Amino acid sequence: MTIVQRIPQSLIWEEERLRILDQTLLPTEINYFYATTLVNVRDAIKKLQVRGAPAIGIAAGYGLYLGVNEIDCANLEDFHEKARQLADELIRARPTAVNLAWAIERIINNSKLARTVNEAKLIILEEAIKIHLEDESICKTIGENALSILKDGQKVLTHCNAGSIATSRYGTALAPLHLAKEKGWTISAYATETRPVFQGARLTSWELQQNGVPVTLLTDNMVGYLLQHHGIDAVIVGADRISANGDTANKIGTLQLAILANYYQVPFYVAAPLSTIDLSIETGDEIVIEQRDSREVTHIGEIQIAPTDINVLNPAFDVTPSNLITAIITEKGIVSENFKETFVKWGNEN
Amino acid sequence: MTIVQRIPQSLIWEEERLRILDQTLLPTEINYFYATTLVNVRDAIKKLQVRGAPAIGIAAGYGLYLGVNEIDCANLEDFHEKARQLADELIRARPTAVNLAWAIERIINNSKLARTVNEAKLIILEEAIKIHLEDESICKTIGENALSILKDGQKVLTHCNAGSIATSRYGTALAPLHLAKEKGWTISAYATETRPVFQGARLTSWELQQNGVPVTLLTDNMVGYLLQHHGIDAVIVGADRISANGDTANKIGTLQLAILANYYQVPFYVAAPLSTIDLSIETGDEIVIEQRDSREVTHIGEIQIAPTDINVLNPAFDVTPSNLITAIITEKGIVSENFKETFVKWGNEN
Repeated sequence: MTIVQRIPQSLIWEEERLRILDQTLLPTEINYFYATTLVNVRDAIKKLQVRGAPAIGIAAGYGLYLGVNEIDCANLEDFHEKARQLADELIRARPTAVNLAWAIERIINNSKLARTVNEAKLIILEEAIKIHLEDESICKTIGENALSILKDGQKVLTHCNAGSIATSRYGTALAPLHLAKEKGWTISAYATETRPVFQGARLTSWELQQNGVPVTLLTDNMVGYLLQHHGIDAVIVGADRISANGDTANKIGTLQLAILANYYQVPFYVAAPLSTIDLSIETGDEIVIEQRDSREVTHIGEIQIAPTDINVLNPAFDVTPSNLITAIITEKGIVSENFKETFVKWGNEN
Repeated sequence: MTIVQRIPQSLIWEEERLRILDQTLLPTEINYFYATTLVNVRDAIKKLQVRGAPAIGIAAGYGLYLGVNEIDCANLEDFHEKARQLADELIRARPTAVNLAWAIERIINNSKLARTVNEAKLIILEEAIKIHLEDESICKTIGENALSILKDGQKVLTHCNAGSIATSRYGTALAPLHLAKEKGWTISAYATETRPVFQGARLTSWELQQNGVPVTLLTDNMVGYLLQHHGIDAVIVGADRISANGDTANKIGTLQLAILANYYQVPFYVAAPLSTIDLSIETGDEIVIEQRDSREVTHIGEIQIAPTDINVLNPAFDVTPSNLITAIITEKGIVSENFKETFVKWGNEN
């Protein structure tokens, strides 16, 4: 799996160690380091050196393997007990990261089938690799589906970083841009900087630049101007969570991109894996929007840009109503109406 | 004119010296310094310690007086020649600042009526004070007109800093908020941080906080979320230039605020003096949009937030078409349709 190529990847498994891109140093320093123990991986997740829901899940899988591989016992029951402790240690690194817990539990459950400790260790590694490869396959298919509705020479606006470095490879919203490049097409990207944490400036601009995709950076308040003057053909964003009716929770700022795209009659697409669809919630109204630390808005690094004690709004994400979404692009296909019906059908097929 | 009060002012004339608020240090340091010479004022304008078109014009007027007051000659012709040199020195401090040149030329022209050098000096000071007071009166009237269409308890969103510290006092877009406070009303303000230069975070939040106006800061991409959740009653912004048909050039980001307000059926107001209306241009299409240095987007102070050599968009302002503007509020009244007709009528009345 040591593939040298131009699409940056945040995680590369090399035999008995995990090569991790330190995303906290981007875009000014490109530094890969090796995690050789569970503690290395756990710390990388804690310090946000690995970010992006799928990437965190993938890293955790390898982290669990690195941990259990050090368990020195022959008794399978003892092994499972120790593995469970290690699993919980990893999950505690970022308790709200759903993919992390999901990957860990999937691996732990599979390891129960083993008849020996060595077999259990092998299953854990195989399952970690499987999660990694599955994610890559999903991302690639999402990208191919998205590319089927784009054309060579078009201009695409994106937000935040739903990119290769947030996943196994390719990303979701950025997958069609990377695949277009592989195909020899020129699709130009426009990336909003994505305040308050600047994922667009720091990560998306960098990731696309690395792969030679033409990219232009703009601040979040230049989108109206961009759509008025630059002939943008599509907006593509990722998703944190999609309700049964298609309402989509994603990084703060997504909602207004959808309204602006709608005003200028530019198609607005959400690119996301089926795992993002949550049929247990009917509409986006049921999604609780967490408020983050105000310091993210008032400070940049150590620079204070707002008066002390100012009241601040800092919602982590917003919810775009499905009527503003032209289509949701998944690995299973593209859906542009009757979202719930299609989601349920796809769910039954899986 | 040394008025102690809670609405911050950027310029206070104290007999023979000009007290200047150093806006480059806000919001972490509130530092007023004294300019006692033309060079002091010129440098303050150059260094952007004074900013905002009306404030620059007012400062320049006093600066010219401080300069000519030092001219030691009895011959009126010699005096006028020297005064002209000083005037040009001030205008060169910021060649694109229209109000600066306008204020200086107005004062110089008036000084031609003098019969002695001393009288000329006196006229120059009187005219500088007159420009200052006229601006204050215009801002106050704009604020009163804006307040006539707002109610106690309402919530208002604003952008950038069309505030007291950009003018003589009160500001334009912020005037109704300051006047509401004087009246004992509670109008809550929401301020976009206004990337790339953060005038909303650094200046508007500070100015309103100083005067006890309740204010909440948000990043530019939280406006959709704000309008969806917070029951905003109006959006009020300033203007750099208004064409005959009402199209309005203002700080980048204004256009998308208008589109978002329109989507959520929130009235969108432009508050600006008549001097902003340019009847020589029919529509906003004729307004050339200057692109600013990309470093404003890629760096914050010394912190680099985007990859080296990234392509950047950095338009200084955008143009909001008049069909998205509920009304334009001036010192002469409020106009919500047939902009050109009313502008021409007002022009003829002046």
